[in-house]
Amino acid sequence: MADNQRPLSGKRIAVLATDGVEDIEYTSSRNAVEQAGAEVHLISLHPGEIQAMNHDINPANRYPVDRQVEQADPADYDGLILPGGTVNPDRLRMNETAMAFVRAFFQQAKPVAAICHGPWSLVETGMVNGRTVTSYPSLRTDIRNAGGNWVDQQVQVDNGLVTSRRPDDLPAFCVKLVEEFAEGRRTGRMATA
Amino acid sequence: MADNQRPLSGKRIAVLATDGVEDIEYTSSRNAVEQAGAEVHLISLHPGEIQAMNHDINPANRYPVDRQVEQADPADYDGLILPGGTVNPDRLRMNETAMAFVRAFFQQAKPVAAICHGPWSLVETGMVNGRTVTSYPSLRTDIRNAGGNWVDQQVQVDNGLVTSRRPDDLPAFCVKLVEEFAEGRRTGRMATA
Repeated sequence: MADNQRPLSGKRIAVLATDGVEDIEYTSSRNAVEQAGAEVHLISLHPGEIQAMNHDINPANRYPVDRQVEQADPADYDGLILPGGTVNPDRLRMNETAMAFVRAFFQQAKPVAAICHGPWSLVETGMVNGRTVTSYPSLRTDIRNAGGNWVDQQVQVDNGLVTSRRPDDLPAFCVKLVEEFAEGRRTGRMATA
Repeated sequence: MADNQRPLSGKRIAVLATDGVEDIEYTSSRNAVEQAGAEVHLISLHPGEIQAMNHDINPANRYPVDRQVEQADPADYDGLILPGGTVNPDRLRMNETAMAFVRAFFQQAKPVAAICHGPWSLVETGMVNGRTVTSYPSLRTDIRNAGGNWVDQQVQVDNGLVTSRRPDDLPAFCVKLVEEFAEGRRTGRMATA
């Protein structure tokens, strides 16, 4: 297929992640949008490389950071991916610049996809309030306490917000996030929360 | 000092933890109560050993489990320690038996000490509601959303509930938890929540 025929040709997607990211959640979601024609940047808290993990406690590969979040402008991106790994969002949510980066995608009505523990960043920014989402089940109480409607689904789509529970859900998650990124910006629907 | 003169002589303390526990938080708190004369059991989700971590993502020592939570009776213990490590409470909170074990200490008005990410078990059980606690700062939003009053203190004591933020706070945490375990059961004060 010619490059301009691919569903995400000409689009740029941000993956926000740091040390502790679950390896397969980063690589699978990144590969899905790259194969659909998008340019992808790994945005992180520090320059250099980040340490990915398998099953949270076994060190896996290291991946090069494309841009520090302090130098990244949400206006440059058409969509955001938030992979999991327990330690990764636990560190992201303490960084105000990272949380402002996440919030901007909702304010700009751009699609966001979060899997496993990734939705903690939605809890931290308040963006889960009033939305129907799934996640790794350990987050369900935090999501409900933040005003979200937690459901136990392989993949859940709520107005441009795609969520899944765990690595096993990656095939369904990747199909839906490519669809939502291809559909593009919502006309104000995501900006109200 | 003769054994019967130590502050926790004759008392039995439970440490509830699983894989991903922060090594120094387990060993320091356990050593503190053992040196004060208590018998200590490591209670966990599975038999065998658990994998401790340094700074969440570097595998550290493995420690033998004394009893599985399914075989542990809260009535046999005089106090509970909940160490941190991000992955450890994330796994505990999905286990209903483990959460019932935690809740029982509050129902029986027995002292509880939680550090770092350990307070997620208090969020999951609803036991943080109406209490003043500290924790690793990544949990502050989850604690506030669960009805807790989060404070940024080295150590916080609220009616037999001792909390601290991080490994650096361990000296102060260990002094206070020995004091509270020595003081023993509250007369109904913790059972109301």
